[in-house]
Amino acid sequence: MSRAYNFNAGPAALPLEVLEQAKAELTDFAGTGMSIMEHSHRGKAYDAVHQEAVANMSKLLGLTDDYQVLFLQGGASLQFSQVPLNLLPAGGSADYVNTGTWANKAIKEAKKVGTVNILADTSKEIPTNMPDFAALPYSKDAAYVHVTSNETIAGTEMPFFPDTPSPLVADMSSDILSRPFDITKFGLVYAGAQKNLGPSGVTLVVIRKDLLERAPETLPTMLQYRTQAKENSLYNTPPTFGIYILMLVSRWLLAKGGAAGIEAINKAKAAKLYAAIDGSGGFYKGTAVPAFRSNMNVTWRLPSEELEALFVKEAIAQNMIGLKGHRSVGGIRASIYNACPPEAVDALVAFMADFQKKNG
Amino acid sequence: MSRAYNFNAGPAALPLEVLEQAKAELTDFAGTGMSIMEHSHRGKAYDAVHQEAVANMSKLLGLTDDYQVLFLQGGASLQFSQVPLNLLPAGGSADYVNTGTWANKAIKEAKKVGTVNILADTSKEIPTNMPDFAALPYSKDAAYVHVTSNETIAGTEMPFFPDTPSPLVADMSSDILSRPFDITKFGLVYAGAQKNLGPSGVTLVVIRKDLLERAPETLPTMLQYRTQAKENSLYNTPPTFGIYILMLVSRWLLAKGGAAGIEAINKAKAAKLYAAIDGSGGFYKGTAVPAFRSNMNVTWRLPSEELEALFVKEAIAQNMIGLKGHRSVGGIRASIYNACPPEAVDALVAFMADFQKKNG
Repeated sequence: MSRAYNFNAGPAALPLEVLEQAKAELTDFAGTGMSIMEHSHRGKAYDAVHQEAVANMSKLLGLTDDYQVLFLQGGASLQFSQVPLNLLPAGGSADYVNTGTWANKAIKEAKKVGTVNILADTSKEIPTNMPDFAALPYSKDAAYVHVTSNETIAGTEMPFFPDTPSPLVADMSSDILSRPFDITKFGLVYAGAQKNLGPSGVTLVVIRKDLLERAPETLPTMLQYRTQAKENSLYNTPPTFGIYILMLVSRWLLAKGGAAGIEAINKAKAAKLYAAIDGSGGFYKGTAVPAFRSNMNVTWRLPSEELEALFVKEAIAQNMIGLKGHRSVGGIRASIYNACPPEAVDALVAFMADFQKKNG
Repeated sequence: MSRAYNFNAGPAALPLEVLEQAKAELTDFAGTGMSIMEHSHRGKAYDAVHQEAVANMSKLLGLTDDYQVLFLQGGASLQFSQVPLNLLPAGGSADYVNTGTWANKAIKEAKKVGTVNILADTSKEIPTNMPDFAALPYSKDAAYVHVTSNETIAGTEMPFFPDTPSPLVADMSSDILSRPFDITKFGLVYAGAQKNLGPSGVTLVVIRKDLLERAPETLPTMLQYRTQAKENSLYNTPPTFGIYILMLVSRWLLAKGGAAGIEAINKAKAAKLYAAIDGSGGFYKGTAVPAFRSNMNVTWRLPSEELEALFVKEAIAQNMIGLKGHRSVGGIRASIYNACPPEAVDALVAFMADFQKKNG
């Protein structure tokens, strides 16, 4: 079987070079006679992997000494709680922007911890949309401002990051390291690894060090960011194999020219796909407002649900996987993260033209 | 390089057959043209893996319909908090037995949540020891009784599980499925996967279903056991690759005759090693009271720290890895979990005799 064109929303495509290296050394890592999975997290072999993963992520993200990389577990879903538990003091409040399913989940968890100000709610707009982040009524005394930089289901993405009076916190699960950004605007950034960084089971957190001490001592030790910060994410056994794959992906990203290099590739892939949608004379209709179209999750509709089902079915027959839209919204979604190769998008665009010819 | 004899305390040895199968299909799982890491957690390919992992674990653990298997993240260290947050009601108390480093950590976190009764404390005894679990003053009205079935650092293991007036909860991280046990004695069992079940990054929890509803709704959604119970551990993206490896290990365990089959092998390995220690005329001295000796982590001392360092160094030269005792206690530790082959123990015993001849 040839390699599939993988448009999964996450877990998603990984670079073939990364998988091939992992395969080559799966039973014998660096001549040690053991798999990397079998190495102690406190041993030399794994430690070199861990340190390189931290160093490469710091480099790729352009971190200054004011920030620290953490590798945690539990995904963005646990971060929805961990952020307010650490950063929202008793009696305080936090600003949130509700841009869709994922922002909404973050808000729901934050409300269990403290007062939440909703600065804007575009979560029910059709076409899917985001607010003008430059014009939101940010609170002067909020503990932080929480945004979702890319809504995987809605197919929307923040085109820029605003200056905010309190620390900006972002769920970047689906666009982290797909483009450069200025970390100094942020207090904290988090991302599940399974879209742009590696396999599921690793959560990247980047935190501005002065925020580490905000958590109350009464918080469970494992939920305090400082616990893992003090131990370089080795307080307890980390998900070593996931971090190893993330490290290999970080090498691959550096070889692509880092965030700026991959952004150029990502923009070209997305532009080609949006051009195919917009040039279809209305057969394909993008579901997001153009100003907030995501370069990661491209979402569109066909004239009927029947045609959408046929589209997904025929795509699978041509080895294109994962194009069915999220079950909550329907339609078509092509997730074209960093590791989705340009050839996959070319194949999809050709298939779209062919499908329209037959069914348009 | 030939395969190392891996005595790591965790992450630890995995069955070579498992690693070889994972390697063979790492870039193309079941002819799908994608790695299992690249499959959606909601797709058919991964779903079959997930369902088999759940079914095999249920079978291996002899679960009745009253129990449910969960695959979580965060390791035993997060369970130290998640257990009391779910099971210890406001104003209630829980019984804990302090048998060493790991029990102590569980107690520390439980104290953040509620009242803790320490039924016994053997954590500072030398030789390392455990109390008589049949004679402990279990509270009649405790929310639960927490025990650590195997202390990885102390090298001690509970020889049996007591009948308790309130639900028994066990941290079984280092002896889960190394021997059969009667699940009906337990309310909840948890274990990090990285010793007997698979790679790090997956946490097995087995919970009696009637306990699922004890958690307050105010608890973060991701920390409520019922959240993952309702969704068969697919509420959010699970650590798919880790669960896949755990599934392969579960097949391997079934082929070995399940818990009873592997117990016979484990007992023989441990007996051989303890015989080598006890037959050394005092050159090697076991650190645990014989009645509580662990079949998983065999710990001993040599006449001096210098000889211990030399022992570890020469063992490494003979491809025996991970024999240095935990940094908090020193000495020697051989972790001989399920996947540590009998040949590794044979090689170690031969090396011990040789080392004593030269240095005794």
